Amino acid sequence: MKTVKVGSVGLGRLGYEHAKNLATQVPGCELAAICDVDANRVKEVAAELGVPNTYTDFEEMCKNPELDAIVIVSPSFLHCQQIEIAMNHGKHVFCEKPLGTDVAQCKAAEKVIEAHPDLIFQLGFMRRFDKSYAEAKRKIDNGDIGKVVLVRSYTQDPRSTIESTLKFAPHSGGQYLDMCVHDIDLIRWFTGSDVKNVWAIGGVFEFDLYKELNDADNAAATIQMENGAMGFMFTNRTHAAGSNVETEIIGTHGTLRIANVGAKNLLNIVDEHGSREEYYPDFMSRWHEAFVAEMVAFTGHVRDNTKPADLTVYDGTAVSEAAYRCKESFETGKMLPIR
Amino acid sequence: MKTVKVGSVGLGRLGYEHAKNLATQVPGCELAAICDVDANRVKEVAAELGVPNTYTDFEEMCKNPELDAIVIVSPSFLHCQQIEIAMNHGKHVFCEKPLGTDVAQCKAAEKVIEAHPDLIFQLGFMRRFDKSYAEAKRKIDNGDIGKVVLVRSYTQDPRSTIESTLKFAPHSGGQYLDMCVHDIDLIRWFTGSDVKNVWAIGGVFEFDLYKELNDADNAAATIQMENGAMGFMFTNRTHAAGSNVETEIIGTHGTLRIANVGAKNLLNIVDEHGSREEYYPDFMSRWHEAFVAEMVAFTGHVRDNTKPADLTVYDGTAVSEAAYRCKESFETGKMLPIR
Amino acid sequence: MKTVKVGSVGLGRLGYEHAKNLATQVPGCELAAICDVDANRVKEVAAELGVPNTYTDFEEMCKNPELDAIVIVSPSFLHCQQIEIAMNHGKHVFCEKPLGTDVAQCKAAEKVIEAHPDLIFQLGFMRRFDKSYAEAKRKIDNGDIGKVVLVRSYTQDPRSTIESTLKFAPHSGGQYLDMCVHDIDLIRWFTGSDVKNVWAIGGVFEFDLYKELNDADNAAATIQMENGAMGFMFTNRTHAAGSNVETEIIGTHGTLRIANVGAKNLLNIVDEHGSREEYYPDFMSRWHEAFVAEMVAFTGHVRDNTKPADLTVYDGTAVSEAAYRCKESFETGKMLPIR
Amino acid sequence: MKTVKVGSVGLGRLGYEHAKNLATQVPGCELAAICDVDANRVKEVAAELGVPNTYTDFEEMCKNPELDAIVIVSPSFLHCQQIEIAMNHGKHVFCEKPLGTDVAQCKAAEKVIEAHPDLIFQLGFMRRFDKSYAEAKRKIDNGDIGKVVLVRSYTQDPRSTIESTLKFAPHSGGQYLDMCVHDIDLIRWFTGSDVKNVWAIGGVFEFDLYKELNDADNAAATIQMENGAMGFMFTNRTHAAGSNVETEIIGTHGTLRIANVGAKNLLNIVDEHGSREEYYPDFMSRWHEAFVAEMVAFTGHVRDNTKPADLTVYDGTAVSEAAYRCKESFETGKMLPIR
Repeated sequence: MKTVKVGSVGLGRLGYEHAKNLATQVPGCELAAICDVDANRVKEVAAELGVPNTYTDFEEMCKNPELDAIVIVSPSFLHCQQIEIAMNHGKHVFCEKPLGTDVAQCKAAEKVIEAHPDLIFQLGFMRRFDKSYAEAKRKIDNGDIGKVVLVRSYTQDPRSTIESTLKFAPHSGGQYLDMCVHDIDLIRWFTGSDVKNVWAIGGVFEFDLYKELNDADNAAATIQMENGAMGFMFTNRTHAAGSNVETEIIGTHGTLRIANVGAKNLLNIVDEHGSREEYYPDFMSRWHEAFVAEMVAFTGHVRDNTKPADLTVYDGTAVSEAAYRCKESFETGKMLPIR
Repeated sequence: MKTVKVGSVGLGRLGYEHAKNLATQVPGCELAAICDVDANRVKEVAAELGVPNTYTDFEEMCKNPELDAIVIVSPSFLHCQQIEIAMNHGKHVFCEKPLGTDVAQCKAAEKVIEAHPDLIFQLGFMRRFDKSYAEAKRKIDNGDIGKVVLVRSYTQDPRSTIESTLKFAPHSGGQYLDMCVHDIDLIRWFTGSDVKNVWAIGGVFEFDLYKELNDADNAAATIQMENGAMGFMFTNRTHAAGSNVETEIIGTHGTLRIANVGAKNLLNIVDEHGSREEYYPDFMSRWHEAFVAEMVAFTGHVRDNTKPADLTVYDGTAVSEAAYRCKESFETGKMLPIR
Repeated sequence: MKTVKVGSVGLGRLGYEHAKNLATQVPGCELAAICDVDANRVKEVAAELGVPNTYTDFEEMCKNPELDAIVIVSPSFLHCQQIEIAMNHGKHVFCEKPLGTDVAQCKAAEKVIEAHPDLIFQLGFMRRFDKSYAEAKRKIDNGDIGKVVLVRSYTQDPRSTIESTLKFAPHSGGQYLDMCVHDIDLIRWFTGSDVKNVWAIGGVFEFDLYKELNDADNAAATIQMENGAMGFMFTNRTHAAGSNVETEIIGTHGTLRIANVGAKNLLNIVDEHGSREEYYPDFMSRWHEAFVAEMVAFTGHVRDNTKPADLTVYDGTAVSEAAYRCKESFETGKMLPIR
Repeated sequence: MKTVKVGSVGLGRLGYEHAKNLATQVPGCELAAICDVDANRVKEVAAELGVPNTYTDFEEMCKNPELDAIVIVSPSFLHCQQIEIAMNHGKHVFCEKPLGTDVAQCKAAEKVIEAHPDLIFQLGFMRRFDKSYAEAKRKIDNGDIGKVVLVRSYTQDPRSTIESTLKFAPHSGGQYLDMCVHDIDLIRWFTGSDVKNVWAIGGVFEFDLYKELNDADNAAATIQMENGAMGFMFTNRTHAAGSNVETEIIGTHGTLRIANVGAKNLLNIVDEHGSREEYYPDFMSRWHEAFVAEMVAFTGHVRDNTKPADLTVYDGTAVSEAAYRCKESFETGKMLPIR
């Protein structure tokens, strides 16, 4: 098995997760380089994971001829320009969500990727790589539940981590861009259709900071798809029981539900609180295996020179467009067409 | 315990259920009279249940001085005028949903009821009398889940009964009036607030008859409440697994879910289909105990001369208004304010 | 519907439940008499439930010619002699479990009942009247799970009521007679076979009183049936989460599980403890509907002059024999044949 | 991270799983050698996984000075002698269950391992490395459920694979040795105690071949532990719904249940069969991650020169002793002390 050499940029919380996975969990992959503006952090992680090449300048890393591919886990506003730099140096690119911080950036990224048809590009919609979500998709494609009528998807963050969430809130882009993009991606993926109209509502039920930000701590959006299917998303920052992402797909002949009870493991606990299942404490532990699986898939594409069939830059743009429209709908109180 | 004597009008499917419950399941109640336009049916049911007085004319029944109360389970368009007749004869009234077939009728019924402050009036929102729904309400009122943020409520009819459903469809008033009124009632009850804006979407995914009726076989509505809480309803005619009514109440400190798995009984079956729970085959078996409980409550109010604290004619009007607005939103494609 | 007139003896906790059910929940039944050694309690309950005839002497009640049937909910040691008295006065009899306090008593009761072939006798194994248990039996009889291989049945009492449990413990007969008789009945019923060998183990894990009583606070028994099927029972006094009775029937083609999660109602609660279901707080609330259903069945048999097809005095004897053998096995440490 | 070089013997179904995991899923591990009597299979697997050294003679492989450790997945009767050969060549050893095919072999293996105190030995009780089982153990050790009273553990094989199971049956050692050893290990691990008495029952309910083998297709065993705790095991070859391993630990203050519903993934399916969860199709897919985790642990011990704290050769002997006693109990019909 040919070794795929990867350079990764960004060593924040998720950046470190990806770096560690690339270094230790992805067969046939070598984490050959890391980059971050924080030189100390680079040194620290390089020592821990045995990474031979370290950078504080992204373009310098891209010049390294050893590297086959670049993994981008930097702040969102850098994504599009780093895609361009990496591709201009002939590197395959994996980019974390969101593709860009506005639709114009996404459109520009499309142009860059179209200009490099020989290079592989994969977006970080890791939920698709979760075993349960992947099996749901297979069952849908197999016709097990008939036509898809409604996709309901929740992304709920635990109250227990609210302090760090509030600290991050002013730079998060708000609920729809930060949290709902994954749900929008799932709704598009499972319905096989594009967003037509959105109406987004919600409010501040507990944490006043969100009022100052013109944002919500509990928010929802209803989506009408081009093909008539429906989507409903709900997201909040006040979930009592750990991290909860659950999705339901109602079809004309059956319904699929993913993680509609606590899903930390197969353990059921009976005690004075009743019969109960615990939730994952945070999104990182929930999605660890999916994060690994998407990197296995990405390095596999690089090795075999194949492209992700249905996870393209256009999905990134479409999701961003819908998220922005939700934000606008929330802010104006209006039901809005996608364009 | 003083015996409460009841006369019941309407001996259709639900009318018969109520008559039988009144005759055999409600302690301290005597089903003293029944009325239906179908004289044979009246005779048949009277014989089976041992009912002494039978009528084909509603007003005649109301003139019977023995009767304390009237239970109305006739076709919807008769509800409001029968309320008036019964009250004018001094009878307490229980009326099945919907209160009226349009908002004007509901307003007229309000006037009638206001004109008889000494008489008890109770509406047939039986879900509130289901043990699980009642306990959810207690927990909410007790503050167990903090502020109510979102109420999601599904009413799904089984595919297996689609033939009779289709036959009834042209006279049903459509999904929002026929199915969603219970969900709207629950959203108002659990949020403690009134409807502000609605957006209703959906479509015909399988049964073309609904296209002719300008109706949907799968429909949803998103509701924004006056206090900022949110509601989401979904209803369909194509549920693969029996009758499914499930409701979720998300609060700032916890979530309550009612019947989010098959709920027919406590039986779990493991076979070649996996580990599974069955659903109730139809709504009648699902709500049998609630139908009894609401009659126990109603006859108790009559006996004790008390009024249902929070289930008034105004709830009936408000729910009807919202259901009509959902219908209009669905038909026009617009998000609409309640008035 | 002919009214069945019943006299009930014993007004303890369960006796009161039965009396109230007979008076208010059983259509076509009149609680025409009650009897208890405590004259004040008799007066109190008669007033509450409107019972016309009151007694402190059991035989006096049986002499009342109005009465069709007697319900026996007195202390266990009186059961067999009261069956005899009632039947000698020509009354149909419902008797709570256990049939007798030793096997000799049970055998004597058999003789009495055989001597009155015209009278109906029904034993208080109310679990068979629970909807979920009844449906399990139907599915088994229908062949849905093939041959029955193993029946596992748990009867767990809540810690929260331990004080009253300990007070009652010296007079309870011990775990096997007090708790397991219902499980033994279920194992015989579901396997359709008789007990062949038993081995009972257990111990005192928390409440030292049970040591003094040569009893256990956590006990199990494994049973081999004549037809080769297996039974496993577990019972304890330390269940953290309310009252728990659960039963599993493993067949060669499928498995049925009754109440293997918290079963108080259809409510699922998500809070800081995870996703959870609550248990019934005590056995009385768990079995309320089954207690009513067994009285509906009994009075129906009396009215229609039919006999319970498969719930006879011999079941009572067989269950008692097995329970005594479990007790002996526990005390001696030996695996024992039934006789 | 120092690379640990491993040689693996046995390329049957489980042997291949281990080889593939060692080659591709265990960071810091190199599968440097494989051995099997089937030279073609060795060549085939070596090509697929890129293994540099291949053998058909086990001792030859052990002579390879490059290898740090040997993984034994050969037929059971070879385990003990291969442990000796490997250790005599200075290799650390991982050995699949069972330790030996009789207790004498296990005792001999103990002597070998005691003679090499510097070498690491780990047994293949992979269930302990499953996330859910590991968390159950942590909660028990943490006192979350008080004293452990009863461990119930089921190992059920799917009917769908019965043909290959029947083929393997004559050489399997029977239900207790082949299936229950994992359950016995769990009972000892969770109760923290040794087996005192066993009673094993069961029979042939469907597949007559087991009669010829003096074995059962459905079998159970009840175990009394030295400390008074109890164990109940059930195993069969006729499970309708895929592979099912579930375990329940009842303590004085709480109960833990692992996989008591279908556990293939987080997907719940609602269709005409009700609301359901699917099971893993076979044990290999159920335990894949645990198989990887035990190898990560083993190679970690080799790298760090530490010993598995509580998974020693003596556990292997104790489990084998108990399994043999269960077999003898089943064959003689007697309850038996462990020795």
